[in-house]
Amino acid sequence: MTRMLRTQGVTAPAGFRATGIAAGIKASGALDLALVFNEGPDHTAAGVFTRNKVKAAPVLWSQQVLTTGRLRAVVLNSGGANACTGPLGFQDTHATAEATAAALSDWGTETGAIEVAVCSTGLIGDRLPMDKVLAGVREVVHEMAGGLTGGEEAARAIMTTDSVPKQVALHQDNWTVGAMAKGAGMLAPSLATMLCVITTDAVASPDALRAALNAATATTFDRLDVDGSCSTNDTVLLLSSGASEITPSQQELTEAVTRVCEDLCAQLQADAEGVTKRVAVTVTGAQTEDDAVLAARVVARDSLVKTALFGSDPNWGRVLAAVGMAPVALDADRITVSFNGSPVCIDGVGAPGAREVDLSGEDIEVSVDIGVGDASATIRTTDLSHGYVEENSAYSS
Amino acid sequence: MTRMLRTQGVTAPAGFRATGIAAGIKASGALDLALVFNEGPDHTAAGVFTRNKVKAAPVLWSQQVLTTGRLRAVVLNSGGANACTGPLGFQDTHATAEATAAALSDWGTETGAIEVAVCSTGLIGDRLPMDKVLAGVREVVHEMAGGLTGGEEAARAIMTTDSVPKQVALHQDNWTVGAMAKGAGMLAPSLATMLCVITTDAVASPDALRAALNAATATTFDRLDVDGSCSTNDTVLLLSSGASEITPSQQELTEAVTRVCEDLCAQLQADAEGVTKRVAVTVTGAQTEDDAVLAARVVARDSLVKTALFGSDPNWGRVLAAVGMAPVALDADRITVSFNGSPVCIDGVGAPGAREVDLSGEDIEVSVDIGVGDASATIRTTDLSHGYVEENSAYSS
Repeated sequence: MTRMLRTQGVTAPAGFRATGIAAGIKASGALDLALVFNEGPDHTAAGVFTRNKVKAAPVLWSQQVLTTGRLRAVVLNSGGANACTGPLGFQDTHATAEATAAALSDWGTETGAIEVAVCSTGLIGDRLPMDKVLAGVREVVHEMAGGLTGGEEAARAIMTTDSVPKQVALHQDNWTVGAMAKGAGMLAPSLATMLCVITTDAVASPDALRAALNAATATTFDRLDVDGSCSTNDTVLLLSSGASEITPSQQELTEAVTRVCEDLCAQLQADAEGVTKRVAVTVTGAQTEDDAVLAARVVARDSLVKTALFGSDPNWGRVLAAVGMAPVALDADRITVSFNGSPVCIDGVGAPGAREVDLSGEDIEVSVDIGVGDASATIRTTDLSHGYVEENSAYSS
Repeated sequence: MTRMLRTQGVTAPAGFRATGIAAGIKASGALDLALVFNEGPDHTAAGVFTRNKVKAAPVLWSQQVLTTGRLRAVVLNSGGANACTGPLGFQDTHATAEATAAALSDWGTETGAIEVAVCSTGLIGDRLPMDKVLAGVREVVHEMAGGLTGGEEAARAIMTTDSVPKQVALHQDNWTVGAMAKGAGMLAPSLATMLCVITTDAVASPDALRAALNAATATTFDRLDVDGSCSTNDTVLLLSSGASEITPSQQELTEAVTRVCEDLCAQLQADAEGVTKRVAVTVTGAQTEDDAVLAARVVARDSLVKTALFGSDPNWGRVLAAVGMAPVALDADRITVSFNGSPVCIDGVGAPGAREVDLSGEDIEVSVDIGVGDASATIRTTDLSHGYVEENSAYSS
């Protein structure tokens, strides 16, 4: 029997400590520095990162340290992305990892900087206030605590425009997966722009973790697309302590990690910037799953579709116009569209009553059959609202 | 010496008549049916159409009749796109062309339906009120008049969310190009979603017209991108009467048509849905012009860039994050960005004073050098404002 709880996060599995503190990186005085620490006995790890060609310093650093398949700790800050900060920004990330390793060594766990991943989120382009970051790193190591509280504080410390912390734990019979994530805008398309740390007490090799994480992110974070904008800082890490002494099969591990990622995706979608509608765009009848993903993404990103949904307007013609631009095989005379299960367009022509379909609820399902095959895929997105424009026209200033 | 006048349009060249009437297609009673008629002596013509795989009935019809390289008339309606209306919608378009040809024949100019192009614009998915369209066609032929007034009425009759009619005339020494266009949203990316009719009294073969039109649209309408949404009805037609008896060189013809299209693009951009800023995104340093177009388009479409510009916020990090996802060769460590000529990011790192650049004016130039070549291109776009969301969340209802 399994149990899924959103009251727990990265400290739910045995062998993990975490906490979050206010280090003064954010002017507001809110929590802004988090640590996730793996007590072992194992320290295997895997990661996936943004596909953006412009990568933040912490992404470049963490990609490098992850080549070892091993991590003792992850230090994360909000209040600044440390992206587009050049060689000096990379030195800042390196110094953060060094300081974390030194503090953990002082505390009694011999740690090298190469065992510390770094994640940053916030405004692109500014250097971090390193005096505050380095002092904060020493403090957060001392504050680090086991138990449930620490995990939630860590989840709070990585929030930017998020309105609520996001965490979840999936308890299997004898082993557990826990996770936290942040992300509310710049959500797309290769990883929903965000930081995410997943922990487990299962015994798993780096290869097993990598396989589980790649499979899980491909069908979850990779299919959440709020605004089509992909960040410079996307990072998803999976750490294993092995403390349960249970070795799940690859399939069991992949399924558990996927369920955790799915749940976090739902939380990210529900808290996306300016969201008033949670939208799932499903394309069926595609020649390949890749085609279905591409076509669903084109519809999910279309500003005219998204503003119509904000207005609860069943303007299905915009769905047709959008999908018609997808770079995939389709039969324009066999496209069928339904909103919340009600057909609005059949074989490329409007269905009776299409303009009266009720879209006033918070959840909208858009289904599009493109009539040339059997493959399907779903992209999750949100509407395009006044709230999105408001939040994003005033974020940096 | 040449003269460009926005007080004239399709009837500026010799040999063209036009007018617009209220046929009752729009519930508001506004002008909604236009006719452009070529009195000759020549009747050569060329057209370019939407690349959307979902094409409206009038696009399918007009593409077919244009294969002859010959047109006597164009009949255009607003108040309904006649898209996604199936075989019956195509019959409606055919009947409209037949009725126009019959009315023109009655009036004294023997005309076949195959000499009549049809354009429609408005909501996708509804059949047109054909009783009103067919009665309107007879009326518009009778009302058709020469002179300047007729052209402006035609330009008014094709407006949808446009707030002003768009027309222009370019007078060369002995020949003239005139044009009208509509379009305010669903503007991208292969033709800025719109209807446009261009007329000239130059003598030109269908091949010469086709070459001029393809060259002109490739660098003008194809590089205007308001919301990344490409419509089902895009149509640009070029008709020649030969009435000036002047045969310009191919280069002269192409240049004149390009200048007219450029001016119409500026008018479309200035009247785009919800526009508060006119934005030009120029990418330089690309390996090829195609790469420059692609990269500039990715930046011009990015919702986070567009909302920042709405807020007059020089948030250059979003430009970096956007261009980093463009599917082109670039050097992330050599990207240089400037806003209105002020460098905000040099070699991938923020420049001093970048956050203080003044973007409060109505025109914003975003320049991005991607550091790998010598090719460049500019995409014109607008900001993403509350007005855009407002207008598009309530358009069909």
